[in-house]
Amino acid sequence: MNPTIDLLTAHRSIRKFRDQPIPRDLFLELIRAGQSAATSSHVQAYSIIHVVNPDNRKALAELAGGQRYIESCSDFLVFCADMKRSTESAERAGAEVVRGMTEQLLVASIDTALMAQNVAIAAESAGLGLCYIGGIRNNPAEVSELLKLPEHVYPVFGMCLGYPDQNPEVKPRLPLASILKEDYYDDSQDEALVAAFDDTMGDYYRQRTGGNKDTTWSEQLKPLFTSKLRGHMREFLIKRGFEMK
Amino acid sequence: MNPTIDLLTAHRSIRKFRDQPIPRDLFLELIRAGQSAATSSHVQAYSIIHVVNPDNRKALAELAGGQRYIESCSDFLVFCADMKRSTESAERAGAEVVRGMTEQLLVASIDTALMAQNVAIAAESAGLGLCYIGGIRNNPAEVSELLKLPEHVYPVFGMCLGYPDQNPEVKPRLPLASILKEDYYDDSQDEALVAAFDDTMGDYYRQRTGGNKDTTWSEQLKPLFTSKLRGHMREFLIKRGFEMK
Repeated sequence: MNPTIDLLTAHRSIRKFRDQPIPRDLFLELIRAGQSAATSSHVQAYSIIHVVNPDNRKALAELAGGQRYIESCSDFLVFCADMKRSTESAERAGAEVVRGMTEQLLVASIDTALMAQNVAIAAESAGLGLCYIGGIRNNPAEVSELLKLPEHVYPVFGMCLGYPDQNPEVKPRLPLASILKEDYYDDSQDEALVAAFDDTMGDYYRQRTGGNKDTTWSEQLKPLFTSKLRGHMREFLIKRGFEMK
Repeated sequence: MNPTIDLLTAHRSIRKFRDQPIPRDLFLELIRAGQSAATSSHVQAYSIIHVVNPDNRKALAELAGGQRYIESCSDFLVFCADMKRSTESAERAGAEVVRGMTEQLLVASIDTALMAQNVAIAAESAGLGLCYIGGIRNNPAEVSELLKLPEHVYPVFGMCLGYPDQNPEVKPRLPLASILKEDYYDDSQDEALVAAFDDTMGDYYRQRTGGNKDTTWSEQLKPLFTSKLRGHMREFLIKRGFEMK
């Protein structure tokens, strides 16, 4: 359609990186591109921790569940939802600030995601690869301590960046008809569409693994909702000042 | 730096649109580009409602606080966090599903934001303009009823799309040094950086309005944290099955 749309649709996670640093100028361009994303009421409710210290990279790789590419990528970022800067600025301007609202958790998490996605696209446009690290939320209290995150700041996800040393296939997505609905939420076709997608993903996994991985989308999802994945998030967020009031 | 990074850094919200439809093929390309964004464990926890019905567009404009461009833009989308499709698919595959976890609210909200930002960038790459509509959360229960959203689906934000009929300036962002931190969260410079940014935004508003708007970033933030903005979100989410357990 156009080179940018081609770039977007070519996205796949990269977990193996060449031993080649990202030039500092380019790195800063990526962050600036991130800042250019839309932000709710201009609040810019995010901070990025650029983790350079190798011991901290190693510790984070462990805390995220043994994801070694956190150590081996060129640059590792932790994207944080940050309600500290904006609320303290409003306080200095004379506001009596209310914190811990559910809406604020949403605003900060969404602002952070929009910004990170711009960083991701800017990176890919410059020939870099990346993967998001949701595993940062496996042990968010320990991650917060390591990065000295204050109250009203929480680590949303990480991102590994670097020059790709692999060329994985693009992973199929759900049929467009299942996620795009006209005027109303009509899911009468969703079961059939998901069944078709299960077949698609089955083929994808078999081909990619030479027949060793035989599963479907629905099967893959099962552990996500059965094991109370990251059941600590509620208590963690409340402790960090995101009380979800 | 490169055309994609130039595009990202040129972003500004568009609220005035030409009376020119978006070709259907292009529209579908934008949605597909959205689907290509990274998604947590491939869960793709989102749905888009494409609001075509003019009465519904009018109603949504009111519900979002009188934002008329929801009616006048070419295409209006409501991006929804969707935990229904994935959890029901896992159930059909035999999982005993746990719903309402805080982590699931985060995953679905973040997945939705990453996807929407890809749609936004794809749109801008094709010469379209857009603005996000957080005002969809002003009256989320009424919006959900209008769009017939089921339980475990909530409207995160809207997006107006169309060919721009205005050319606003790019809005300044916080100094990069205030949002990018090395290894640790160090905010010892933040007060000074925010003070400088308050000056920047003061100049921006005065220039843009011919001197009529005289405010700063910190001043602008004050009503956001004082009036318990969208204090209904907690109860709304709980009612819709996002219990934040």
